[in-house]
Amino acid sequence: MGEDDDALDYHRRNPAKIRVEGAVDVETQDDLSKAYTPGVAAPSRAIADDPVTVYDYTAKGEMAAVLSNGSAVLGLGDIGATASIPVMEGKSLLIREFGDVSAFPLVVDEDDPEELIATAERLEPMFGFLMLEDIRSPDCFRIEDELSDRLGIPVFHDDQHGAAIAILAGLLNALDVVGKEMDSIEVAVVGAGAAGTAAADILLEAGAETIHLVDRQGILAPDMDGLNDRQQELAERVNSGGTRGDLADAVDGADVLLGLATGGIVSQEMVRSMADDPIVFAMANPDPEIPYHDAKEAGAAVVGTGRADYPNQINNSLAFPGIVKGALRCNALEINMAMKVAAAEAIADIVDDPAPDRVVPSSLEDGIADAVAAAVTEKGRETGACRI
Amino acid sequence: MGEDDDALDYHRRNPAKIRVEGAVDVETQDDLSKAYTPGVAAPSRAIADDPVTVYDYTAKGEMAAVLSNGSAVLGLGDIGATASIPVMEGKSLLIREFGDVSAFPLVVDEDDPEELIATAERLEPMFGFLMLEDIRSPDCFRIEDELSDRLGIPVFHDDQHGAAIAILAGLLNALDVVGKEMDSIEVAVVGAGAAGTAAADILLEAGAETIHLVDRQGILAPDMDGLNDRQQELAERVNSGGTRGDLADAVDGADVLLGLATGGIVSQEMVRSMADDPIVFAMANPDPEIPYHDAKEAGAAVVGTGRADYPNQINNSLAFPGIVKGALRCNALEINMAMKVAAAEAIADIVDDPAPDRVVPSSLEDGIADAVAAAVTEKGRETGACRI
Repeated sequence: MGEDDDALDYHRRNPAKIRVEGAVDVETQDDLSKAYTPGVAAPSRAIADDPVTVYDYTAKGEMAAVLSNGSAVLGLGDIGATASIPVMEGKSLLIREFGDVSAFPLVVDEDDPEELIATAERLEPMFGFLMLEDIRSPDCFRIEDELSDRLGIPVFHDDQHGAAIAILAGLLNALDVVGKEMDSIEVAVVGAGAAGTAAADILLEAGAETIHLVDRQGILAPDMDGLNDRQQELAERVNSGGTRGDLADAVDGADVLLGLATGGIVSQEMVRSMADDPIVFAMANPDPEIPYHDAKEAGAAVVGTGRADYPNQINNSLAFPGIVKGALRCNALEINMAMKVAAAEAIADIVDDPAPDRVVPSSLEDGIADAVAAAVTEKGRETGACRI
Repeated sequence: MGEDDDALDYHRRNPAKIRVEGAVDVETQDDLSKAYTPGVAAPSRAIADDPVTVYDYTAKGEMAAVLSNGSAVLGLGDIGATASIPVMEGKSLLIREFGDVSAFPLVVDEDDPEELIATAERLEPMFGFLMLEDIRSPDCFRIEDELSDRLGIPVFHDDQHGAAIAILAGLLNALDVVGKEMDSIEVAVVGAGAAGTAAADILLEAGAETIHLVDRQGILAPDMDGLNDRQQELAERVNSGGTRGDLADAVDGADVLLGLATGGIVSQEMVRSMADDPIVFAMANPDPEIPYHDAKEAGAAVVGTGRADYPNQINNSLAFPGIVKGALRCNALEINMAMKVAAAEAIADIVDDPAPDRVVPSSLEDGIADAVAAAVTEKGRETGACRI
C-alpha cells in the first residue's frame, strides 16, 4: 500500500511524464514563415511528389509509436486502453531518456485485431518505428505479422522480442560464467506466451538445439490440442518426436530454466533436478517462478529475475530504447532476426567480466542504448534492412 | 523559387519541428521504479477503477491531437496524409510555443469519413483535445459533428472555428474603427466552405442580422440545388426569402466583405459599390480576393488579409493555441459557441486602440494565447462545458 500510494502521489504530481516540445524557434515573423505558413508548402509539395522525402522534411525519422490496446498489461491483464496510458507513457519516456529519440504513446481503444491492424496502418505516415506493447496473445502474433507485411517501417512487438533479446543477452554471459556452449545445452522455457515463444525462437537462431517449451498443459507437442499457430510451429521445430511431460519433466536435467509464466511454480526440488551449474532466469513479475534466494540455495549457479531489487534484472528496457534508436537512424524497414541477435550480443558485451550476479548490465548504465543502436544499424545495413 | 528553396533547406536542417521529451527525471533506480515499473501499476489500476482519473495520472489533460488526412490542405488541396505532415507539425509547434501545452500531429491515411471517425474515436484516450485540420468539405462537417457526439473531449475543426474566431475578433475592432454596430450591418460572406459557413455562424451568434452567403453558384438560397447540409441550413437561416444574385449583387451595399474563397475574384468596382466606410477582409491565401492596396484605393476603410506582409493578418493561429490551452486547463468536454465568441472578444481586446491598420494583433505578440485561454476557461465553466 505504501508503495502504491507513493506511485499514485508521484503520478499526481507529474501527470504528464512526456511532453511534446518545439524543436525549432518561433520568435520572429521569419521563423513563423519558415516553420508554419507559407514555409510548410514547399516540403509538403516535395513529399507529395516523392513520398520517401518525408524522412528529410519531417519528424518521421525521429519518431516511434508505442502502440497498445491495453489488452494484456504486465501484471494487470486486460485493463483497456485508457488504463494502460501510464505504462505506455513510461515506455515512451524510456525511449527518450535512454535512446534519445521521440516516442509517442499511441493508445488505441480497440480489441478487434483486424480493426487494430487497420488503425495502425492508417497511422503509419507520422512514425518511423512501430513498437507494439501489451497486446494479448495470440492476437499479438497475427497483428505483428500482418503489420510487418503491410507497413514500410519496423514493427516490433516488445513483449516478444524485447524480452527475448534481454534473455539472450543474459544467457550468453551466464553460459560464459558456467563454461557451457549454446549448442550443447538443454533449455526449459516455462511459459509459451509472447515472451516464451519469442525466447525459444531467438535461442534457436543463436544456436540452441534442445528446447523444451512448457505451458499449463505441459511440454508442447505437435499433436496437442489447443495450440495457437505460433506454439504449433515451435512444437514442430523443437519437439518433432512428440515427447510429452509436465513441468518437472521439462526441467529435469536441463542446463537452463527460463521462467516466463507465473510466480511460484518452480520448486527447489526442480532446480536440484537440473544439470550441473544450472542457470535459472525466473522472470515472472512481481513474483518470480522461484524466489532468487531459493534458487541460489537449491544450487543454481546463475539466477536472474525481472526485479530491480535482485541481481541480474532481465528486462526488455535493456533492449527497446537502443533498438528504436538504431532502427530510426538508418530509416529501417524492419527488425530482422539477425538484428535482434546483434542487439543481444551488444547488451552482453557491455558486461566486461561476467559473474554469477552480473550477467546483464543495469538498464540505467550509460551506453547501453548506443551500443545496441550501433549493432542494430550495422546489422540492418548488412542485411538490407535499412534505407540509409 | 528562392522562397521554396529556403523552406526546403530549413526543413532539411530541421526535419523534426517537434520532439517528444521526458517531463520527469530518469536518473536513479527510484526514478525508474516510480515512472516505469512497478510504479505504473498503481495509476493504471486507479484509472481502470475510475476512468476520469486519467486526467490526474497521465498526460491526457495536457495533450492535444492535431488530426488530418491531408484531404484539403490550405493552398495545396488533397495532397494526402504523408505530405500534410509539415503542416500538422507546424500547428503542433505553434500550440506548444504559443499555448505552452503539448500537441501531437496525428496524421491519418484514410479518406473515408466513417473510417476516419472510427479511427479518431479509438485514439481518444490519450488526448484531452481533438483539433481537426485540413479535411475536405463537406466531409469535415459530418466528421466534426459525429466526433463531437461520440467523444468526451472537445472536437474543434480549426479551418471552421479558428478562422471564424479570428474573423470575429478583427470585425469587432473594425466596426469600432468605422463606428458601426454588429446588429445593423450587412455582411457578404464570399465562399461557403468550412471557413465561410463557420464565419456566418459565429457572426449570427455575435448579433449580425443580415448576411449574404455567396459561393460559386451565387447567393445561397434554400431552394438551390447542390447545397450540402451545412449550406442548406445556413441558407434557410440567412436567406429565408430566397433572394438570388451573383457576387456583385451580394457585395452591393454591404458594410463588410469577408473573402474566404479564391484570389482575385473581387474587383475595385465591387468595393466601390459597398456602403460607406466598407470593411474588406480578403483572406484567400496566398492571393487575396482583392489585393490590400487595391481595396484601400477603392475606398475600403479597413482591409485585412491572410498574409503576414500586410497589416491585419486574420489568421487562425491567433485563436487555436489559446483555445487548446484554455480547454485543457479545465478538462473541457466541448468548445461551445459561447466559448468561441469569448475567445474572439479576448483577441479583439488585446488591441488597445483599434485603428484601420490594427484591428487584430500579430500572432507573435505576447499574451494572446493566455488571454484567449482565460476567456475560454471562464466561459466554459460558466456554460457547464468543463469538468474542473
